[in-house]
Amino acid sequence: MRTQVAIVGAGPAGLILAHLLHASGIETVVIERQTRAYVEGRVRAGVLEQGTVDCLSRLGLDQRLREEGLRHSGTHLSADGDDFRIDLEQASGGACVTVYGQQEVTRDLFEAAEARGLTILFEASDVGLHDIETEKPFVTLRTPSGEVRVDCDFVVGCDGFHGISRQAIPNHVLRIFERVYSFGWLGILTERPPVSEELVYASHERGFALASMRSITRSRYYIQCDMGERLEDWPDERIWDELAVRLGPNLGARLQRGPSFEKSIAPLRSFVAEPMRYGRLFLAGDSAHIVPPTGAKGLNLAVSDVTMLGEALAEFYSERSAAGIDAYSARALGRVWKAERFSWWFTTLTHRFPETGAFERRMQVAELSYLRSSSRAQASFAENYVGLPLG
Amino acid sequence: MRTQVAIVGAGPAGLILAHLLHASGIETVVIERQTRAYVEGRVRAGVLEQGTVDCLSRLGLDQRLREEGLRHSGTHLSADGDDFRIDLEQASGGACVTVYGQQEVTRDLFEAAEARGLTILFEASDVGLHDIETEKPFVTLRTPSGEVRVDCDFVVGCDGFHGISRQAIPNHVLRIFERVYSFGWLGILTERPPVSEELVYASHERGFALASMRSITRSRYYIQCDMGERLEDWPDERIWDELAVRLGPNLGARLQRGPSFEKSIAPLRSFVAEPMRYGRLFLAGDSAHIVPPTGAKGLNLAVSDVTMLGEALAEFYSERSAAGIDAYSARALGRVWKAERFSWWFTTLTHRFPETGAFERRMQVAELSYLRSSSRAQASFAENYVGLPLG
Repeated sequence: MRTQVAIVGAGPAGLILAHLLHASGIETVVIERQTRAYVEGRVRAGVLEQGTVDCLSRLGLDQRLREEGLRHSGTHLSADGDDFRIDLEQASGGACVTVYGQQEVTRDLFEAAEARGLTILFEASDVGLHDIETEKPFVTLRTPSGEVRVDCDFVVGCDGFHGISRQAIPNHVLRIFERVYSFGWLGILTERPPVSEELVYASHERGFALASMRSITRSRYYIQCDMGERLEDWPDERIWDELAVRLGPNLGARLQRGPSFEKSIAPLRSFVAEPMRYGRLFLAGDSAHIVPPTGAKGLNLAVSDVTMLGEALAEFYSERSAAGIDAYSARALGRVWKAERFSWWFTTLTHRFPETGAFERRMQVAELSYLRSSSRAQASFAENYVGLPLG
Repeated sequence: MRTQVAIVGAGPAGLILAHLLHASGIETVVIERQTRAYVEGRVRAGVLEQGTVDCLSRLGLDQRLREEGLRHSGTHLSADGDDFRIDLEQASGGACVTVYGQQEVTRDLFEAAEARGLTILFEASDVGLHDIETEKPFVTLRTPSGEVRVDCDFVVGCDGFHGISRQAIPNHVLRIFERVYSFGWLGILTERPPVSEELVYASHERGFALASMRSITRSRYYIQCDMGERLEDWPDERIWDELAVRLGPNLGARLQRGPSFEKSIAPLRSFVAEPMRYGRLFLAGDSAHIVPPTGAKGLNLAVSDVTMLGEALAEFYSERSAAGIDAYSARALGRVWKAERFSWWFTTLTHRFPETGAFERRMQVAELSYLRSSSRAQASFAENYVGLPLG
């Protein structure tokens, strides 16, 4: 088959790009390794920046988001059990974040894709990218109904950190920047109302904790743990007890404990691959960069990538100009590095680093105390948290 | 002899405190290990916060400072040779810094002390603090003219990091927080106009550099170096060449090279001792805390300490209330930790850390890039640089 843009990966990055290009009259084929049910079932973060909401809104994909998403005009930080609120809306000059699970975003994207007749090839195996250095690249793959070859003008790799797209770029072209943290996040979902209406990021001597939610009846909690920990050593009660300590006496006493129905340990990583283009292949989202989850930038960064790439491809087809696609990598990386910095800083501010000492802990406490006391520091925090401009 | 407050150390902290107490009608005796000429000759930093200038002004000690000090309404940061300016006055809402060497401050303080009849005992050796846990402490010392005992109500240790005052506090009472950096600053003075009217803090792959000045005809430059370096390996030309590289092509080409008449290597340290009071002994300035010199907070922090302590002691004598002196340590430390944080952050942002990798270097570049692009980040930088409120 023939299309204009082949998109590898039907996560939020790939699907939003397909919708963006569709809106510009550009044909796409989305190639996904898993089934639709599998992709829709993946549990991921769910804090959407203002720009992400605006993007979904412009695509007409925000109906359920507007109804069910939780608009948060503030967030809480806690230092050794003592918490304070940052008024994001005021500090940022009017922007907010919206809590709406990535699973919900994905469901909306699939439903609209179906309604709009977008082509998605599920359960694609043996995906291969070919001739990406030329103007006539193509993708080969195997689906349950047979082998397929997709001829196209461009290939976009939206297939995540472990995907095949980044690997199609020769090693000598890529520059990799990476930091692996010495700890992970142990996360649980429970069918109980959240302890706080807004998110609470807690920095505690015993380690980081995050009180988050999926809805007003479903809570999502995380605690920092060693990467060597085993889930069986963390029965629910132990997690609740630890959360109660790290969130401090006020919030700890209000925790609504319940059985967890999802429990997992995730590593934390900072990763950037440069450049985000090689010939006719573009990378977007997790295939090019990973942030630690503190501040929930991952999905939002994927959306800003594909927004920039969508504009560049639309310019290419409507004006026959390569200026946009030539500028894509540098433009996207400009914002990527700022979000990497914020995610790294927010992680460094709030987590316990076993390798550092008492002075560094005091630096964390002093920075939280400064942030609490300074409207200027809060304004800087807020503009990053709600999302920096596209740039 | 008998006085109300015995002050150990005739550096800026001790002398300003003596002037502050004098203005409140409180008697002091200042005890100094060195000669006046030695103290006046010590080369130190010379960037005064707005609050430091205001303090000297209230004490009537600002005549020469107003005439000869250089008022800077901005400062420059440079990333790999590419520099940008932060308008401190605009970003902070009206405050500035003033470049006026610590040597000049000290000279003004000594001259006014003489004119006002303040008592300073120079060349004091064998200084001992006694009965500081009681309400009748006393200080013993030997001067060139014989042994002296100073009976007093309070003792204030303004005798710096290596002084005897902090050591008079039992070990089990003190909590020490410390970070020693793996590099130092190689500094030179030269009788040439500075390369820039305002300070330039340069973050470069090869290490940090700072272009500063003492006056419009006298320059002060620093470059980050290994602590193992020897001065004899750094002839002037090598320093000029290295500065030219680190400051970048624009500034590097404008460097006015000249013979150095002061050249030294200083270590970088972050240090805080808690609490800053033990019985009738108070610590102020470097005796309680050290900051790395990036951002020039050391002298300014000493001034905020003694300003708070001066208020507390005036309250004690005028109202017979211990509330102020009881609150001093916590109040001073609140501001100390914020300045420690800023100095540590500014050092971490701009220096090359041999122990970290390419990702961390990119975090520095991304933070400088964010600072360059964000008025909110600049506002936060500026309020720290010109000096946070007393608190």
